[in-house]
Amino acid sequence: MDTTERRVVDAVDVDGMLQYLGELVAIPSVTGHETPAQENVAAQLAHCGLEVDVWELDFEELANHPAFSIEVPRQHGLGVVGTLGGEAAGPGRDLIYNGHVDVVPAGDSANWHYDPWQATLADGRIYGRGSADMKGGLCCALYAAKAIHDAQVQLRGKLMVQSVIGEEDGGVGTLAAIMRGYRADGAVVVEPTQLTVAPAQAGALNFRVTVPGHAAHGSMRTEGVSAIEKFGPLYTALMELESERNRDVQDPLYSGYDVPFAICIGRVRGGNWASTVAESLTFEGRFGVAVGEDVLAARRAFEERLFSAAEQDPWLRNHPPQLEWWGGQFEPAHIAADHPVVQTVQSSFGEITGTRATIAGVPYGADMRLLVNEGNTPAVLFGPGDVRKAHQPDEYVPIDDLVATARTLALVALRFCGHKGD
Amino acid sequence: MDTTERRVVDAVDVDGMLQYLGELVAIPSVTGHETPAQENVAAQLAHCGLEVDVWELDFEELANHPAFSIEVPRQHGLGVVGTLGGEAAGPGRDLIYNGHVDVVPAGDSANWHYDPWQATLADGRIYGRGSADMKGGLCCALYAAKAIHDAQVQLRGKLMVQSVIGEEDGGVGTLAAIMRGYRADGAVVVEPTQLTVAPAQAGALNFRVTVPGHAAHGSMRTEGVSAIEKFGPLYTALMELESERNRDVQDPLYSGYDVPFAICIGRVRGGNWASTVAESLTFEGRFGVAVGEDVLAARRAFEERLFSAAEQDPWLRNHPPQLEWWGGQFEPAHIAADHPVVQTVQSSFGEITGTRATIAGVPYGADMRLLVNEGNTPAVLFGPGDVRKAHQPDEYVPIDDLVATARTLALVALRFCGHKGD
Repeated sequence: MDTTERRVVDAVDVDGMLQYLGELVAIPSVTGHETPAQENVAAQLAHCGLEVDVWELDFEELANHPAFSIEVPRQHGLGVVGTLGGEAAGPGRDLIYNGHVDVVPAGDSANWHYDPWQATLADGRIYGRGSADMKGGLCCALYAAKAIHDAQVQLRGKLMVQSVIGEEDGGVGTLAAIMRGYRADGAVVVEPTQLTVAPAQAGALNFRVTVPGHAAHGSMRTEGVSAIEKFGPLYTALMELESERNRDVQDPLYSGYDVPFAICIGRVRGGNWASTVAESLTFEGRFGVAVGEDVLAARRAFEERLFSAAEQDPWLRNHPPQLEWWGGQFEPAHIAADHPVVQTVQSSFGEITGTRATIAGVPYGADMRLLVNEGNTPAVLFGPGDVRKAHQPDEYVPIDDLVATARTLALVALRFCGHKGD
Repeated sequence: MDTTERRVVDAVDVDGMLQYLGELVAIPSVTGHETPAQENVAAQLAHCGLEVDVWELDFEELANHPAFSIEVPRQHGLGVVGTLGGEAAGPGRDLIYNGHVDVVPAGDSANWHYDPWQATLADGRIYGRGSADMKGGLCCALYAAKAIHDAQVQLRGKLMVQSVIGEEDGGVGTLAAIMRGYRADGAVVVEPTQLTVAPAQAGALNFRVTVPGHAAHGSMRTEGVSAIEKFGPLYTALMELESERNRDVQDPLYSGYDVPFAICIGRVRGGNWASTVAESLTFEGRFGVAVGEDVLAARRAFEERLFSAAEQDPWLRNHPPQLEWWGGQFEPAHIAADHPVVQTVQSSFGEITGTRATIAGVPYGADMRLLVNEGNTPAVLFGPGDVRKAHQPDEYVPIDDLVATARTLALVALRFCGHKGD
C-alpha cells in the first residue's frame, strides 16, 4: 500500500460503522417494507459525503422487464444510490458496491437468544436479523466510501454505493438501478460470503405447487382425498431429483458444498379444518440451478419429475398438481475468475489481512446475476458474515469480518477507480 | 297410525320447511359466527307456536365444566330452546330434538357447482353448506313441532327443540342447554345419518402437534433442519396407528365402515418463507375413539405412537414434537339399542316410510355424547342427508329425506310424549 492507500484504510471509521449497523438492524426492513430503511441509508450516504440519488420505483415499468420477479406486492419502493468521485482528471474505471436492505422475517423470536430487531454485541459479533444478510456488508460499503471522502482523495472513476430493496424476493431494487442507467466496469455485491471472493452464483427459482384433494368429513376420511397425504410422494420425488442433480458436480468452484444446488421446500399450507379432509395443499420452495445451466432446461427437469410423480398416483394422475414459477427467479451467473474486479478484490484483501482470499462460487441466488446478465456489469460477491447464519435465529456478523471488508472495499475502490495522484 | 297421528303427519308443511331451510342456508353461520342464525331460529320457533327461551351463554361458567371444549374463541353466543306441550293432563315423557346451526367453512367456492351460501334445489336435493350438517335436520324438528301445534294436539310430556351453536368445535351450545337445566327422557339429535337410527357415536379428539425444525438459508438447507421433512415420519406413524386400531373392529354397529375410527390430519402449516428451511410445522387433526373405549387410554396410545416415532429420528429425539389435545374433545357414547327412544324412532320411521330403519353406530363425534354423558338424557342420532357429503363441496340433503324425517319426528313426539286423547 502506498501512503494514500494507507491513509484511506486508516480513515475507516470502525466505531461509526458498528454504530450505524446497529441503527440499521433496528429498522425491521422485512422484504416489502423497506422504505424507512432506504430513507435512513439515503441520509447516511449524504452524511458520508456522497451525492445521493433517491427515486420512486415505477413498478409498472419494471414489471415489463423480462428479468422482473417479485413475491411481496408493493405500492411503493425507493431506489437509493450514492456516488463518490469521478472528479479527478484522467481515465478511471467505474465501480458499484451493491447491498440490499431487505431482510427475511425473524420467525419465532422465542428461537432467538437476542432481540432480532436490536443489534447486540457479544463474543466479537453483532447479532440481529440482517446483520450478515446484508446490512453488515452495506455498512462496509458506506464506510469504505466515507473513508475515501474523509481522506479527501479524489477518485478518477466513479464509486457508486447502491442500497437496494427486494433482493430476497427477486431483485427488483437492483433491476431498477440498472434500468435507471447505473452500470460500471466492475461491481462488488456485499453478500455474506465469509470473505470468500465469489465470481459465480448458482441460480434459484422459486416455485409454488398446489396439490388438489377432495374434502370430506374427517370421520369418513376415505370418502375424501387428502391433499396432505398426496404431498408426500411429490416431496419425495423432488428430494430424489435434488439428490441426482447434486451427485456429480464437476465445477471446482462448488466442490466445497454437500448440496450446492439445493431444492428447499420452505413453506406448506394444507387444509383449513382439523376434522375435514384437506381439499388443497400448497407448497413453496426454491430450486437451485447450477452455474452455466440453462434455466429453461432446469425448469423442464423439475416439471418432468413433479408430473411423473403425479402420474404414479391414481388421484393425482387425474387431478394433477399445479406448478407456478413464482417470485424470485434468480438465474445463475459467473464472470471470469481472472477478471480485474476479481483480481483487485483478491489482492486488496490479501494486503489488508495478510491472508490469501478463497475463490469459490456461492450456492445461492443474488443480485450479482442482474448486474452481470442485465446490467452488463462484471460483478463479484464478497462480504462479511456467513450465509449459513443468515435466515436463521441468532444471525450474526463477526466484527473482524466487518473491519476487513470495509478496509478491503476502500482499497479496492482506490485501485479499481484510480485516484488523483496515483 | 290413528286419526290424530295421521292428522299431525299430514299437517307437516313441507313447502314452508324447504323455504325456511333456504333462509337458514343463506345465513353463513360458520362455527363462531352463529348469532344471526340463532336469532333467526328463535323467531321461527315462536312463529311455529313454541315457547322460546333465548339466553346469552356464559363462557366463563361453561369453561369450568370438565366437558367444555372449544376451538373458535367467542365473546358471545346464544342458547335457543323452543318448548311445546306439557299442557295435557296425565303422565308423559319429555323429549328433546337437538340440532346445531353452526357449519364448517365452505372452503374454496371454486370447488362448488352451486353457491354454498344459497340453497339450490336440483335433482330432488337441496344444495348448500349446512343443508345436511345440519340445518336440514333442524328444520325437520321445527316443522314437526309446528305440525303438532297447527293440528292443535296437546302433548302430555314436553317437546323441546334445541337450536345450538358450536357443535363443530366441541359442543358448547348443547353443554350450555344442559347447564341451563334442560333434560328429558329421550332425545333425537338430527345429524345426517341417512335416516339410520344410531344409538352409538364414536369419539373424536382434536389434536395439534407442533414439530420443531431449525431455520437456515434454503441454498444451504443441510445447515438447517426442515420441520416439513420431519412431519413425514410422524404422519406415517399416525396412519399406521389408525390402521392397527381399525383392523379388527368387533362392534356390529360399526361393521359397515372401512375405517370407523379414523385419524384425519386436516390442517398443516409449516415454514414461513419459500427459501428458508422451515423452523416449525403444526398439524391438526381428529383422532377417532371407539364406542366404549376409555378416552384416556386412547390418548395414551396416540401419545405413545407419536413420541416413539419421534424417538426414531435423531433430531426429533432431542427436539420432540409438542402435542396438545385442543378444541373438540368428543367422548364416545351409546345407549341400549332397545331403549324406548330408539324403538319409537325406529317404529315411527317404519310406519311413515314403509321401510325398516337401519340401526348402526356413526363414526363421528356429535352432541349426543353430551346429552347422554353429561345431561343424563338417552339420545339417538337420526336425520336427513349423508355425512359423506357434509364438510364437502356441493353438500346436499335429499328432499325425500327431509320429508321422511319431519313426518317421523312428528309421530315420534306424539308417541313418546303422549297427547291428549291418546
